[in-house]
Amino acid sequence: MKSYKFALVGATGIVGQTACKVLEEKKLPISKYAFFASSKSVGKTIHFLGNEYHVEELTEHSFDEGFDFAIFSAGADIARKFAPIAVSKGCIVIDNSSAFRMDPNIPLVVPEVNSNELKNHNGIIANPNCSTIQAVVALKPLDEKYDIKRIVYSTYQAVSGAGSKGILDLENGIKNYHKHNDYSLQKFPYPIFNNCLPHIDVFMENGYTKEEEKMINETRKILNKPDLKITATTVRVPVSNSHSESINIEFNKDFDLSELKDILKNSPGIILQDDMTSNIYPLAINASGHDEVFVGRIRKDFSVPYGINLWVVADNIRKGAATNAIQIMQNLM
Amino acid sequence: MKSYKFALVGATGIVGQTACKVLEEKKLPISKYAFFASSKSVGKTIHFLGNEYHVEELTEHSFDEGFDFAIFSAGADIARKFAPIAVSKGCIVIDNSSAFRMDPNIPLVVPEVNSNELKNHNGIIANPNCSTIQAVVALKPLDEKYDIKRIVYSTYQAVSGAGSKGILDLENGIKNYHKHNDYSLQKFPYPIFNNCLPHIDVFMENGYTKEEEKMINETRKILNKPDLKITATTVRVPVSNSHSESINIEFNKDFDLSELKDILKNSPGIILQDDMTSNIYPLAINASGHDEVFVGRIRKDFSVPYGINLWVVADNIRKGAATNAIQIMQNLM
Repeated sequence: MKSYKFALVGATGIVGQTACKVLEEKKLPISKYAFFASSKSVGKTIHFLGNEYHVEELTEHSFDEGFDFAIFSAGADIARKFAPIAVSKGCIVIDNSSAFRMDPNIPLVVPEVNSNELKNHNGIIANPNCSTIQAVVALKPLDEKYDIKRIVYSTYQAVSGAGSKGILDLENGIKNYHKHNDYSLQKFPYPIFNNCLPHIDVFMENGYTKEEEKMINETRKILNKPDLKITATTVRVPVSNSHSESINIEFNKDFDLSELKDILKNSPGIILQDDMTSNIYPLAINASGHDEVFVGRIRKDFSVPYGINLWVVADNIRKGAATNAIQIMQNLM
Repeated sequence: MKSYKFALVGATGIVGQTACKVLEEKKLPISKYAFFASSKSVGKTIHFLGNEYHVEELTEHSFDEGFDFAIFSAGADIARKFAPIAVSKGCIVIDNSSAFRMDPNIPLVVPEVNSNELKNHNGIIANPNCSTIQAVVALKPLDEKYDIKRIVYSTYQAVSGAGSKGILDLENGIKNYHKHNDYSLQKFPYPIFNNCLPHIDVFMENGYTKEEEKMINETRKILNKPDLKITATTVRVPVSNSHSESINIEFNKDFDLSELKDILKNSPGIILQDDMTSNIYPLAINASGHDEVFVGRIRKDFSVPYGINLWVVADNIRKGAATNAIQIMQNLM
């Protein structure tokens, strides 16, 4: 069995740290690990698989010693600069940032949905946006069978998606709730504690946020339906981890609801939680720490000929980022 | 100027207490107030307009002394039993429960939208569900101009809508966050702290909750469009007060976006908060304590010929319950 050399770029961030956990669980055939981050994290120690690793500064020479795979979770600017360098040294890069996602020459992959795209890579594979990943895992098997016509997304996104400063804003709100202290916000333009912010990423000319645009464009690319009709409202909610999504879907074809539920139940990466008689439905607190996408509240939408509503929940740091990237790597091993 | 006698039924609950605040602010021509509640609240004192009032037990004789108006915020069972008694004694009842809302002989009123219906009352006027009220205030002026074809609702509802026990569940979660204590839930089937519950009111055979059914049916009745195509997903979020709503609307007629915004801006009961360049959009923390409906994030939905997305926020206890009931009473004075 072949053994691989692996580099993690952005090792000290939330996604990087979760990638370490997922790698420990998966026990992949990797013989050498290296952990890179920006200069301010250099010297930090990573405890991994019983060993201690020193975090190294990412430089133009980081990939000189030869890696088979690198997962980048360090933002779009770092990815644009260093991913091509890594590729030029023979390394396959799986990038978590938005830098390459909409590049027509770069596959945007959720393994359950379009692992066939991996054969077309030129060294870089893009990992989709967290809110898109969990949606398309549920949408793909339904599209194959019933041909999706239109999607209306409304999201309930956790603060972990905004990194450690997002988590801090929520925690400071919780701590100061009974003290009525003012506290300075690190990440969000307004308090997220006790509030819902209909604002993720920056606003664009047309009134949408970039997060909403990402969900629309990435869903189309991953489902390979460039003209699919989609609209989205993406909202940050005061939840530490795991995104929830209200997804309204219109199909071109008629469906039988119990057959549709069976399709979801038997599709890869999905756990069906859909029993109203026992109050069984997906919940953020239950999804956290898991790699699957949880789907429930499945019911006919009586306002269109062939429509349904779904409630889709997943750990946005695992399946929405770290796990999906590692699953892409596994597919290439 | 005529002076009225007024009774508040359910005076000690969250809506009743907020009704007292709103009444103090509005300085209506009322010469006599009485405050009723269940036997367990009897003996409590209500400080109101500089006086102390004793809470009286609601009985079949409570309305014998002659009231002009009563606002009921005591649930459907109390309303079904006592509202007809009050009416038989010449009192006009405005009921906050779901008991009479869908009765074709009882007006369901949001004054900004359909105060014309008040002329048809037979003694009882129903106050709509909180999540419906704030939606129709925004929808009505748009329907008049552009003829709404279909609505997709996804809600982000505060715990105050579930009463004091709902608030307690959230507060206990906040208090115990860092202690990792178990705490017993008073209201919700699962923790609401750090979580989103896609479950408000009970589930029905068709997979929808009663809250979702209420939004659909009450919107149709208030807009006087019995066949309007609507679907809804209603979700409880960890926010103390003020509901937020993601509303996707499809029109039959074309529209100009700046004209549409002007219509909303100039419609009664609405405050437009829609300036993406300055991060101005409605927020639950800002809506609390106000009587208006806040509307923003207004943008074209490019997935249908004539569609928009809206973000609509209001204080669910004020405009969603107490204020709306008092506005109905004002209209009848």
